[in-house]
Amino acid sequence: MKLEHLGIAVKNLDSAVSLYEQLLNTPCYKTERVDHEGVNTAFFLTGDSKVELLQATNEDSPIAKFVNNKGEGIHHVAFEVENIEAEMKRLAALGFNVLNAAPHKGADNKLVCFIHPKTTNGVLVELCQEIKG
Amino acid sequence: MKLEHLGIAVKNLDSAVSLYEQLLNTPCYKTERVDHEGVNTAFFLTGDSKVELLQATNEDSPIAKFVNNKGEGIHHVAFEVENIEAEMKRLAALGFNVLNAAPHKGADNKLVCFIHPKTTNGVLVELCQEIKG
Repeated sequence: MKLEHLGIAVKNLDSAVSLYEQLLNTPCYKTERVDHEGVNTAFFLTGDSKVELLQATNEDSPIAKFVNNKGEGIHHVAFEVENIEAEMKRLAALGFNVLNAAPHKGADNKLVCFIHPKTTNGVLVELCQEIKG
Repeated sequence: MKLEHLGIAVKNLDSAVSLYEQLLNTPCYKTERVDHEGVNTAFFLTGDSKVELLQATNEDSPIAKFVNNKGEGIHHVAFEVENIEAEMKRLAALGFNVLNAAPHKGADNKLVCFIHPKTTNGVLVELCQEIKG
């Protein structure tokens, strides 16, 4: 699997974008609001992968809960797969706790699902597949 | 900057390696002990970047402290730079808290330094430069 992006939860997207533009020395190339996930996102190219900053748009957002419980920081890592449904079946059969019964549409034109950190050494893993056509 | 690797702190490297081989569907291609950092490490290729698992080899290791305080999980993200000393100067001048006065040798034949999470939205950032020759 390819490391597609690293998701970082932040409190204030505008100030975090400015800071990561300085840190990574590259401009934010895209922002996107994903209403059903309750997030505003901003993307940076970092070689063959991306950094995604995420700010909650409401208090029920998983990002709001994460920031309230743990503070800002790395929220998830996403790996790109060619066939997300086949990967979900493969990993569930191996005992990984796949959190979604079916993939759903996430940011950046992707089908996504998540794997619970309790089966991956504390890491929230996203699987993602580009939506084609 | 290119995302070079993602560092994940684990309690037991052997079992974590088995699990990540299943998760990522790729074999661990290298293990390396880094005595002055107090860690055993294991690497996986994930496209143009890597996943590094780290287990502490003693209780004074930063990884032992991290796991004791926060549990297993993502510990740092490393970005590759061409001239680490120039990047350290650039980022210090911008107000980032560069934790090392000079780069030091890390795992995987790299010069490395770290940036304190308090200036990077809670993310421990490593800069790394391949040692050539």
